[in-house]
Amino acid sequence: MSKPSIGFVGLGAMGFGMATHLVKEGYPVHGFDVFPASVDRFAAAGGIPTSSLEESARDKAFYVCMVASAPQVQSVLFGEGGIVPALPLNATLLLCSTVPATYALSVASELATSRPDIKFIDAPVSGGALRAASGTLSIMAGASDEALSQGQFLLQEMSDANKLYLVPGGVGAGSNMKMVHQVLAGIHILGASEAMGFAARLGLGAVRTAEMIKGSGAWTWMHENRLQRMLEEDWNPGASALTIILKDVGIITTSARQSQFPTPLASTAEQVYLSALLQGYGAVDDSSMVRQYFGEPIMKVEGSESEEDLQLVLDLMEITNLVAAAEAIAFARYLNVDLKQFFTLVSDAAGASRQFMTKGLEMIEGQIGGSETLDAAAARLEKAVQKARDLHCPLHLGNAALGVLYLAKKSGLGGEGSASVVKTFGN
Amino acid sequence: MSKPSIGFVGLGAMGFGMATHLVKEGYPVHGFDVFPASVDRFAAAGGIPTSSLEESARDKAFYVCMVASAPQVQSVLFGEGGIVPALPLNATLLLCSTVPATYALSVASELATSRPDIKFIDAPVSGGALRAASGTLSIMAGASDEALSQGQFLLQEMSDANKLYLVPGGVGAGSNMKMVHQVLAGIHILGASEAMGFAARLGLGAVRTAEMIKGSGAWTWMHENRLQRMLEEDWNPGASALTIILKDVGIITTSARQSQFPTPLASTAEQVYLSALLQGYGAVDDSSMVRQYFGEPIMKVEGSESEEDLQLVLDLMEITNLVAAAEAIAFARYLNVDLKQFFTLVSDAAGASRQFMTKGLEMIEGQIGGSETLDAAAARLEKAVQKARDLHCPLHLGNAALGVLYLAKKSGLGGEGSASVVKTFGN
Repeated sequence: MSKPSIGFVGLGAMGFGMATHLVKEGYPVHGFDVFPASVDRFAAAGGIPTSSLEESARDKAFYVCMVASAPQVQSVLFGEGGIVPALPLNATLLLCSTVPATYALSVASELATSRPDIKFIDAPVSGGALRAASGTLSIMAGASDEALSQGQFLLQEMSDANKLYLVPGGVGAGSNMKMVHQVLAGIHILGASEAMGFAARLGLGAVRTAEMIKGSGAWTWMHENRLQRMLEEDWNPGASALTIILKDVGIITTSARQSQFPTPLASTAEQVYLSALLQGYGAVDDSSMVRQYFGEPIMKVEGSESEEDLQLVLDLMEITNLVAAAEAIAFARYLNVDLKQFFTLVSDAAGASRQFMTKGLEMIEGQIGGSETLDAAAARLEKAVQKARDLHCPLHLGNAALGVLYLAKKSGLGGEGSASVVKTFGN
Repeated sequence: MSKPSIGFVGLGAMGFGMATHLVKEGYPVHGFDVFPASVDRFAAAGGIPTSSLEESARDKAFYVCMVASAPQVQSVLFGEGGIVPALPLNATLLLCSTVPATYALSVASELATSRPDIKFIDAPVSGGALRAASGTLSIMAGASDEALSQGQFLLQEMSDANKLYLVPGGVGAGSNMKMVHQVLAGIHILGASEAMGFAARLGLGAVRTAEMIKGSGAWTWMHENRLQRMLEEDWNPGASALTIILKDVGIITTSARQSQFPTPLASTAEQVYLSALLQGYGAVDDSSMVRQYFGEPIMKVEGSESEEDLQLVLDLMEITNLVAAAEAIAFARYLNVDLKQFFTLVSDAAGASRQFMTKGLEMIEGQIGGSETLDAAAARLEKAVQKARDLHCPLHLGNAALGVLYLAKKSGLGGEGSASVVKTFGN
């Protein structure tokens, strides 16, 4: 049986990988992008080029939308000459863009009015361009059972066998799951730069510091993924442009404001990203954020190997990541996200950190252990923050995390296990 | 009766004003500075130049130290060829530099060992170079009664009749009073830039916005003082260099860490100052911080006069200043600072704001009124923060303040008067 034709819009870094992977799997993929050069590149990779949204959608029983933002989605789906009117009866529409859950719901509601026959799946993805191209993304899909039964084969083609998450709760739940995952990703991306910039200020060699972080309790997936580009200053055109994570963090803080929920670390990261945007870093790879902490290439630092200084860097990251885990888990719980699924998903995705996988589990299960008190964790971070201040090194996340720990102490949590910081966020 | 000779070290912007004022009042003032040009300028203004610390101190029954930082104080007082060994028996030593209270106490203790005859007064000042030159500074003096009785005439010469505060608690209490005052100054300096940068992003004309802020509940002394320089971009050499407020804020956050007390807004301001330092703004006037929010001179903005947008700017500043007042008052209370004196002092000094003078009084007196709920205040700030985000404008303080309000809501304070945000800081 021949494979069905698929329409696809949004052939950027991620979308190009996803679409060409489907081509490799034998699907006729009809791709469109506002940049003709992207369409040409797709054609060169075996895709079928189209010259309009309408052409990309006409007679396609399956359609994947992977443009960058909610306003773009709105325009390509419902704008003049858009996708929705051109889709055939009972088509399945996968929205893989990262959008606010409220926006995904508004698409469902607009479809219910204008095209109730269309099966709509809210299916944001995670994993980066390489995993997109190999069909091993993490996908968080929320939809009706009917829509899922029609579209699941296509979700499976694009995702790793273990990383397709059918998120309970229907449309919106997929986007919420992605959003709380991005709380961690958005903090850790800046964290990777904050740790390496602080290390450079301390005079620590970059290569060894990166290795030590990766082998310690300070590990995050973002360190694993970004440090090489940071060391090489391989920033242009940018594997992951600053504007991408900034958009995702904007979804988080905007949703948090709608719920009046505090997200101090994500919010701090956002402000630093906005400052960097103002300085012209928007299109540049987000590993360039290290420049917000250290003015020169960190590879230029003559490597001292002070174990004491290195410990400060590890402590900074460990405790900041602990507070990040608390912020993400508290927000997820508030949004009624399935926490077990959230834990499984994050542990094997771009939001992962050693702290999330250990202390985060304690927070989720409500089984807070006594291995280190909150007081002791605060003391470790405090030492790093003071040292950075003495060196005139900004430490945006470290200071914000320490502030959260001090507020936790004010609430009487100082003597409890460090994971009890999650209680500061309420619920 | 002829006036006594006075020794003076530290002829920078503030010190030069103070020393030349004493000259005008008829005192023989023997001045020293590490920069020979400053000594020459002092001589040209009628001062008596000296060529060493020792010479400036020998036979001087009264000595004023106005160098920039604790390490400098330590060096000029106790270093080789320093002031203390050269002072005559029973001399009175005024330390007017801004230093941590713990450092002022360490000076007292070192004198108790080496020169117990010296009468030591911990007497930091506030008010800027103009008021220094006219002898109308605010001075916060802590010392033994004996030392105060000897030195009070000199404190009176340098201060406004209503602005000499004899702070109860002895040495250290003056520096603590200055420090909690600087919590407000340190936040409001950035706040002035944040408000004007946000206004520029909104397309509001700078001159009119500045006037509206000054005439509203968003007023601060810093707006009054900095906005003209900000509009004119009169930044070099800088009436008040960024490094000065950065040093003061460093004293605050370091002391706060020693007490494990949360100072989220002062800490946020510090991180932005450190970022600007990294960008090369250290020696520049702190009104240049507007560049952290808007990339061009704000006078270039074509003035729209949207009342709705202007209200967002006023709301941003009002609510941020409300939270700043809470942070300063809570920290002052924690440090056992005399709150009535603190209120009187701040209301007539560089840390003043309309919010401090109204809502701050409610916080101090524990008489929190019901004119606006915390929920309603948060909602006003929320609207400004969301608008800034939509414009990609950083809003460091506004976001930090909103985070504090959300945490206050989590503690169940949402329905109380907005001044109850002070309870979030404990005690």
